[in-house]
Amino acid sequence: MLRDFVMTQKPEQEEIRSLLQIEREKLIANQLKVKDSKLPVMVIFEGWGSSGKGGVIGRVIKNIDPRFFKVRSMDTPTPEERRYPFMHRYFQYIPEAGRFVFFDRCWMEEVISQHMSGNLSKAEYRRRMRSITTTERSLTDNGYLVMKFFLHISKKTQHKRLEALQNDEQNRWRVDEDDLRENENYDEYLEAYGRYLTNTNSPSSPWYIIDATSRKWTELQVLQFLNQGIETALANSAYAHPILQNTFPLKRMPRLADVVLEGKQLDNDEYQERLDELQDELKQLHHEVYRLQIPVIIAYEGWDAAGKGGNIKRITSAMDCRGYEVHPIASPEPHEKARHFLWRFWTRLPKAGHIAIFDRTWYGRVMVERIEGFCTENDWKRAYNEMNEFERELNEWGAVIIKFWVQIDNKTQLERFTDRQETPEKQWKITDEDWRNREKWDAYEQAVDEMILKTSTTFAPWHILESNDKRYARIKALEIVIKALREAVEKVDEG
Amino acid sequence: MLRDFVMTQKPEQEEIRSLLQIEREKLIANQLKVKDSKLPVMVIFEGWGSSGKGGVIGRVIKNIDPRFFKVRSMDTPTPEERRYPFMHRYFQYIPEAGRFVFFDRCWMEEVISQHMSGNLSKAEYRRRMRSITTTERSLTDNGYLVMKFFLHISKKTQHKRLEALQNDEQNRWRVDEDDLRENENYDEYLEAYGRYLTNTNSPSSPWYIIDATSRKWTELQVLQFLNQGIETALANSAYAHPILQNTFPLKRMPRLADVVLEGKQLDNDEYQERLDELQDELKQLHHEVYRLQIPVIIAYEGWDAAGKGGNIKRITSAMDCRGYEVHPIASPEPHEKARHFLWRFWTRLPKAGHIAIFDRTWYGRVMVERIEGFCTENDWKRAYNEMNEFERELNEWGAVIIKFWVQIDNKTQLERFTDRQETPEKQWKITDEDWRNREKWDAYEQAVDEMILKTSTTFAPWHILESNDKRYARIKALEIVIKALREAVEKVDEG
Repeated sequence: MLRDFVMTQKPEQEEIRSLLQIEREKLIANQLKVKDSKLPVMVIFEGWGSSGKGGVIGRVIKNIDPRFFKVRSMDTPTPEERRYPFMHRYFQYIPEAGRFVFFDRCWMEEVISQHMSGNLSKAEYRRRMRSITTTERSLTDNGYLVMKFFLHISKKTQHKRLEALQNDEQNRWRVDEDDLRENENYDEYLEAYGRYLTNTNSPSSPWYIIDATSRKWTELQVLQFLNQGIETALANSAYAHPILQNTFPLKRMPRLADVVLEGKQLDNDEYQERLDELQDELKQLHHEVYRLQIPVIIAYEGWDAAGKGGNIKRITSAMDCRGYEVHPIASPEPHEKARHFLWRFWTRLPKAGHIAIFDRTWYGRVMVERIEGFCTENDWKRAYNEMNEFERELNEWGAVIIKFWVQIDNKTQLERFTDRQETPEKQWKITDEDWRNREKWDAYEQAVDEMILKTSTTFAPWHILESNDKRYARIKALEIVIKALREAVEKVDEG
Repeated sequence: MLRDFVMTQKPEQEEIRSLLQIEREKLIANQLKVKDSKLPVMVIFEGWGSSGKGGVIGRVIKNIDPRFFKVRSMDTPTPEERRYPFMHRYFQYIPEAGRFVFFDRCWMEEVISQHMSGNLSKAEYRRRMRSITTTERSLTDNGYLVMKFFLHISKKTQHKRLEALQNDEQNRWRVDEDDLRENENYDEYLEAYGRYLTNTNSPSSPWYIIDATSRKWTELQVLQFLNQGIETALANSAYAHPILQNTFPLKRMPRLADVVLEGKQLDNDEYQERLDELQDELKQLHHEVYRLQIPVIIAYEGWDAAGKGGNIKRITSAMDCRGYEVHPIASPEPHEKARHFLWRFWTRLPKAGHIAIFDRTWYGRVMVERIEGFCTENDWKRAYNEMNEFERELNEWGAVIIKFWVQIDNKTQLERFTDRQETPEKQWKITDEDWRNREKWDAYEQAVDEMILKTSTTFAPWHILESNDKRYARIKALEIVIKALREAVEKVDEG
């Protein structure tokens, strides 16, 4: 793709000047339309060292109101960033609806530079490529415009530019080892860049190769494609994306109606004894997890009044409070709603060695958002796959993922609701909304069954906690967490 | 992709039966919506030998009105089919709007089977893959629903089925060499199929892998995905597709305003003498072209009354009438309008060794259709690339492609129109529409300039025939055709 690219279409200087004027004015008009129609625009600049990425971003943003854009310069990941999944430091910066984010280098650069310096095995390279295509597709599927520019210059041009910089005392610092290595091994890099472009050239987020031999001409090409991309995206307000096959390996799970609740109970003495034992054990394991830098994610979903809060407390009270965080998930804030639905979870991930507990999760997409119509049918139908992909990313990063569905029966919920209603110190726990949701029990049960069926992957299956007796559910949760952490610790210790 | 696929989600027999009933009824309803909303649906079945492709097609179509679908079984290409480009025999069968076409094997099978038998070089394999991804993208970009199913069975299951067929006198004929070779070399085929699926798994036409271990379960999966695909596609009536970069190598061309017409003329004696010489030469070359099986495509566009017809006649009168065909292209018939805009040109391609002359061409998309609004802005803006891709297919097949723009000035057109109007035997040549088009001269000139700029690829550039003097234009056309054919003949003779 890159090797065949021909840089011959450059117009005369004067024409470039007059076309630039037209495109700049178009962008000034388009930014307002982007804002009004709440389109999130992610503009990625990749390319050779010294091809002028920073410069062209500087010129493009002159046409955009500073309140509407951010520029993100992505350098080599820091040690802190390395404690998160590969995609984390990029995903946190995705634009919100109606805004632009310009990336000066992005995930391509990171993968290629690691690949070229021999720090990625073939399997890791393939996994990275899959992360990237999956993320780009998930962004465009969720309404993002993703514009990808590769700034291209010849070996000779790059050499000349690097030499000029090195001979200039003020700019010498701009040339680093990587640039020089790139120029020396231009042909190998050309091959690697070209293959990358071909493999990530998707119809929904295609590559635009920019002949970056001169400044104004570079700017013109970028502006033309950017304006055209915005105009095309603005025309597509409600596109329903094809729903991909859920090809993940799945565990077979029971329907909620088939979950036996009777008899799943513990008397108080039995409970207290087991609880003490298990909490001691978990305490020890928490240190191990920290020492081995294993990230842990524990996700809770369940019926209102099923006992999620108390269950979580029995987990956290066994742990060092510096090593875990509980994230109560309510309906999204405006700045969260303005981004990809997984953004508020990406930004709440634990770093390696830490534990994040989610009290309600990303699965809201296929429960409350589905049932209340907060997203389109196409959105929630796509989401099973998107969430499996998200969890696969976490799993491949090395995370332990434990998902709990806290199950009670309809009758038990009614008893607990009534008790809350009638007990003054519990009244804050029950709202009209809880009663309204209760009326939709059947719709929720259907949604939960579908969720458990489609997202119980072998690497992140659901566990059902029978919680008509809360003590039983707490002990079971502790046992599952301990088992999963122990396995992870043993695996890392061996490997 | 294929290796990781897990076949574990099969429901119980009884559930399959009841779900099947639901999906069949859905398809019966969906076919009517497909018809009403004029959605063209292309359903491709690929997969292992004996995986039951024919059988599942047979069961799916039971739910569709026979007037609304066709089934195409694609076998090894015949010698006749080999005289056309690789994609020709598939493209001719694409469905029209509101109809289904089911392919029992398609381009995947042809490529993999040639690849596995060592009959495709690496470069040819890559070219085929590009043809396929390009074609699939062009179909979905032009409003097609393309559903791709891969029927998957294990080595053991395949072996068992092949054995059972061989032991059954009535069905023995169903097992061929290819099936046996596939089973013997199952792992290599798995690798090749898997790589193919990954490389062609586009967001706009994703693969669906079907666990084909049992008949009813296979049917259920196919129906579920098919119904879901149709429902998603029906939701997208007016999606504007991203406009891809036109990365083809282009020749620099003048604008029409800069084409010098004055002085480009010949006196009659000079003309007659040159004409005789050139026609003799062309006659000889035509035999060579036939002998060497070179396909030739000559495309004419130009202003009304520019002299296209007379020009074409001077070419054809030098040739054996069994070796060429002239295709006058008017506005598309209903059955043509109901398909991809390039379909009526794909089906008019010459076979190798023959010459096709198009009097007006596929470029109508970016001229009359653009100006008269017969297609959307998104359609004609995408078309430059789509036409370059089409011509690249032809070029890589080995075709000589010659594109003429027959140029006159505004004043000359007026003189010729007036002459036609006033000369009784020429009056049939001039219509009100010609006069109406003439009023849009400026809009056409702009469209033609853009067309020539964006589609003068190095392998199929435009040639401008200055035709204020028709004799000059005819001689120039003959010279260009002769030069192009001579070069092609020499190249084939050498190679």
